[in-house]
Amino acid sequence: MNGESVKPPAPDVRLPGFADIERAAAHIAGLAHRTPVLTSTYFNDRTGAELFFKCENFQKVGAFKFRGACHAICALTPEQAARGIITHSSGNHGQAVALAAAMNGLQAVVVMPKDSARVKLDAVRGYGAEVVLCEPGTTTRQAAVNALIERHGYHEIPPYDHPDIIAGQGTAALELLEQVPDLDVIMAPVGGGGLLAGTAIAARHLKPAIRIIGAEPANADDAARSFRSGQIEPAAAARTIADGLRATLGVLNFAVIQRHVDDIVTVSEQAIIDTTRAVWARMKIIIEPSCAVPLAALLEGKFDARGKRVGVILTGGNVDIDRFVAG
Amino acid sequence: MNGESVKPPAPDVRLPGFADIERAAAHIAGLAHRTPVLTSTYFNDRTGAELFFKCENFQKVGAFKFRGACHAICALTPEQAARGIITHSSGNHGQAVALAAAMNGLQAVVVMPKDSARVKLDAVRGYGAEVVLCEPGTTTRQAAVNALIERHGYHEIPPYDHPDIIAGQGTAALELLEQVPDLDVIMAPVGGGGLLAGTAIAARHLKPAIRIIGAEPANADDAARSFRSGQIEPAAAARTIADGLRATLGVLNFAVIQRHVDDIVTVSEQAIIDTTRAVWARMKIIIEPSCAVPLAALLEGKFDARGKRVGVILTGGNVDIDRFVAG
Repeated sequence: MNGESVKPPAPDVRLPGFADIERAAAHIAGLAHRTPVLTSTYFNDRTGAELFFKCENFQKVGAFKFRGACHAICALTPEQAARGIITHSSGNHGQAVALAAAMNGLQAVVVMPKDSARVKLDAVRGYGAEVVLCEPGTTTRQAAVNALIERHGYHEIPPYDHPDIIAGQGTAALELLEQVPDLDVIMAPVGGGGLLAGTAIAARHLKPAIRIIGAEPANADDAARSFRSGQIEPAAAARTIADGLRATLGVLNFAVIQRHVDDIVTVSEQAIIDTTRAVWARMKIIIEPSCAVPLAALLEGKFDARGKRVGVILTGGNVDIDRFVAG
Repeated sequence: MNGESVKPPAPDVRLPGFADIERAAAHIAGLAHRTPVLTSTYFNDRTGAELFFKCENFQKVGAFKFRGACHAICALTPEQAARGIITHSSGNHGQAVALAAAMNGLQAVVVMPKDSARVKLDAVRGYGAEVVLCEPGTTTRQAAVNALIERHGYHEIPPYDHPDIIAGQGTAALELLEQVPDLDVIMAPVGGGGLLAGTAIAARHLKPAIRIIGAEPANADDAARSFRSGQIEPAAAARTIADGLRATLGVLNFAVIQRHVDDIVTVSEQAIIDTTRAVWARMKIIIEPSCAVPLAALLEGKFDARGKRVGVILTGGNVDIDRFVAG
């Protein structure tokens, strides 16, 4: 940490801690996959680092988001569960809530923007949730959720800015550091910031000297700007292929990130596309473009990891392959 | 086995045995990857079986072929190695020989048909081997190899019909049965038959009652026809997207297959394409179409595995994604 970027959170916010991540791990055990860690000689050679990829693309619903959603739903009170649950999502969180709800015998409503990838819409419906379409944009989505809550009394499972979500997402780093204990660096992409916050809490507790690095598309760099200015900066209309990273940084997540994260780096769209395709071709795994952002940062030299052991969380694999290749 | 299909090999052929596979495993340890086994709730639900996928698409050079080539090269005498080595291949075996040769400081020549996928030509050259292009067709390829041997004195590493190759390929099943000991069925695709032969020797020794099933494209069904007639049937010009399975069944491989394999089933081109894409979308791994053939057979009901624990060897991931999607 070197002492920098350590700022107290606002006094009325309870930040989740490592004990919350341990509780989440106990909740999701047997429901979520303990995903494997893969290595790649090719990417080691290109970066000069020793890379360990935590494959959350193999997670239930194909993304780490299942961890947070599953924990949040397991943690509901009977009264909350009985009201039925609702969320909004551009995709992976929606699938995660839909499946976790189905596993717990609950009814879920997922508000999704009209321009969501078809594969994600189909998947949410396939898990038995009701999809309500809205215009794109976080504000529009939340308004649609609020209207439905007012009408039906649903309980909301927020997509990222909530202690249970952060704790659930943190279980990926907890597992990674059990699988590969001696990491020098851990990297995660940052959109709303739930994964990076959870990662930071787990990694800082288990390995205080570890470097914790977030990575973001340059075209959706609100987290990097906020990290530098010390206050949440508004997101511009994000034009990035990394559709999982278009969300605005959450307040709670930002407080955790300020406390524990060492840096947030940004990468170009071309680097994201090239890296996504290189991972497909070389590692023989499907990742979605949002996943490729930390590795793209290493390949572009945005963070020098030569000689270091670096854990990289590959966040998901839900990509419309035809659309991506054709584009 | 139920006693059927057990025929003696020709008296002058020494069939490799389980001890050869154990020797191969010792040779390749530390050079080849011990590949992971993945599972899929989705495909379990669709087949009614419990499936265990041995991910040789994560193997060095992206295919199981590295096992046989690596063992065959490690087993060379110093005199053979000094002559330089040559092989012919439509792709994966060529990459495997090229890399295994480079690892052992040897020079390799790989004769490849002009219509090989670009990604495979580039990869063979990338490992430092010399590529000699020839017209498509196994006879043409072998003639080109013979001419180069006559001129330069190279030692040939055959692609599949050789005891060392069979023994090397058998290490995949050996590992799978260490990772998942209690399989009822093991399945592998069959082209030249080296993988199926090695799989059969390993599996029959370790688990005598296991069912051993080969799978083949209906458009390249020479192994299935040979299995039924009891003699090697000529291959028609194979029109299949499963380019790894166009080879004609090897003599030695056929003798092993007759002795140990329970059945060879065939699948349609459409089933191969649909299954390949379903594995990409659902398991988030890249497989080449040849890989998809055993799973396609399960999905098409060509082999009823309901209630069984089935090991499936996913053979490789070297596919030109753009070409496959566009096609």
